[in-house]
Amino acid sequence: MISVVVIGSGNVANHLILAFCENKSIDLVQVYSRKSTFFPDCLSNSKITHDLSHLVEADVYIIAVSDNAIAEVSSKLPFENKLVVHTSGSMPMEILDNKNQQGVFYPLQTFSKEKEIEFSKVPICIEATNEKDLQLLNNLASKVVDKVYSISSEQRKSLHIAAVFVSNFVNHLYKIGNDICIEKNVPFEILKPLIEETADKINFLSPSKAQTGPAKRQDTKTIEEHLNSIKDENQKEIYKLLTQSIINHG
Amino acid sequence: MISVVVIGSGNVANHLILAFCENKSIDLVQVYSRKSTFFPDCLSNSKITHDLSHLVEADVYIIAVSDNAIAEVSSKLPFENKLVVHTSGSMPMEILDNKNQQGVFYPLQTFSKEKEIEFSKVPICIEATNEKDLQLLNNLASKVVDKVYSISSEQRKSLHIAAVFVSNFVNHLYKIGNDICIEKNVPFEILKPLIEETADKINFLSPSKAQTGPAKRQDTKTIEEHLNSIKDENQKEIYKLLTQSIINHG
Repeated sequence: MISVVVIGSGNVANHLILAFCENKSIDLVQVYSRKSTFFPDCLSNSKITHDLSHLVEADVYIIAVSDNAIAEVSSKLPFENKLVVHTSGSMPMEILDNKNQQGVFYPLQTFSKEKEIEFSKVPICIEATNEKDLQLLNNLASKVVDKVYSISSEQRKSLHIAAVFVSNFVNHLYKIGNDICIEKNVPFEILKPLIEETADKINFLSPSKAQTGPAKRQDTKTIEEHLNSIKDENQKEIYKLLTQSIINHG
Repeated sequence: MISVVVIGSGNVANHLILAFCENKSIDLVQVYSRKSTFFPDCLSNSKITHDLSHLVEADVYIIAVSDNAIAEVSSKLPFENKLVVHTSGSMPMEILDNKNQQGVFYPLQTFSKEKEIEFSKVPICIEATNEKDLQLLNNLASKVVDKVYSISSEQRKSLHIAAVFVSNFVNHLYKIGNDICIEKNVPFEILKPLIEETADKINFLSPSKAQTGPAKRQDTKTIEEHLNSIKDENQKEIYKLLTQSIINHG
């Protein structure tokens, strides 16, 4: 049985708490949050503390707070030589105070409080300063998800940038599509099978091979007509840049 | 029983042929292609013609050729006063020669020959010049797909632009994500659950509410670090423009 303390109360913390609560081979011994907040039902109130000096003994301490608070929280921990990890995609492992053993436990997913996810399908990227800690993180992650990857801080940083492109930016393009539909009074739901298929397709074809559309065909007539129809300057600029990028690098 | 002739041999034509072949309440009487090519197994050779003057009688003629060939093909048809439709997202209905009854039968999906799709989930957008033709197209479409939408040429044009954003451009962002992974020797498959969840999420939340990431949080420190790490000028430009767009309009 691996014992865990989760520090934080945001989206990532809550999804981890839920996954750990429901797992009989993990002992979620405590959760710290700065202030009172909502936690998943499965967490009994007696396990919640708002005082770092009350933290109890555990095999791993997972700091799931915003990127800019990680260093400070890790330096305030009232113990040494324990395994302390953060959950950030973009922060190097070394941002953690080195009075404890540093590590990373990064679940690569887009978490929103309003949307349930199948946590077992979330890949977890781990990193540690020694083989024993890495093994412990691997054991812990394997209990809650199907795929665990050992990834260096540098690789993780690139992965996080790639994730911004394939998730945050992609969602913003969905938003623009939605805006265009609202403007023309067309139901956005017409586009949902297309959105789903576009995401599914790359499980079978590389993104290069999966590319379709006017830019790929270099169909300049359609591209020009689209640019003439788009009134919003911001949308027009994005259309131009991405079309050019597909033509040059697609 | 509705009788149909399909004119064309590209991706859209082939997916329609397959859907019609397999449907017992549609009579696919003939397929025209300019030159010899491959067609789905279910189509018997005797139904294929390479000569427009050999076209047989049918309730609907579906022109599924590239956008810039639609007008010419429709003008070469050796008959009048029949229902002739095209399958294009971006072309107005009126591009069809008006010696026949014009219409549109636009399956909104990304089609690649190498990837099978569940055709029944593809929305079909229809348009016609009169109620009777619209009803016929609605009947035909309803036999092969679950959702049929009556959409004007102007709405269809906007829908097609929205589709470019949520599919063609999205796929290009997947390609950039893949490029970043290849460069840093990280398996792209780590990102696939994230890609899937990002697409799934908007079935539950509006794209605005689903937005996450450094731009949404206005986390300028992470944004700057990302921009410093991205060496490719084209990727950098796209990162900047989409980040700014999320900050201003996200």
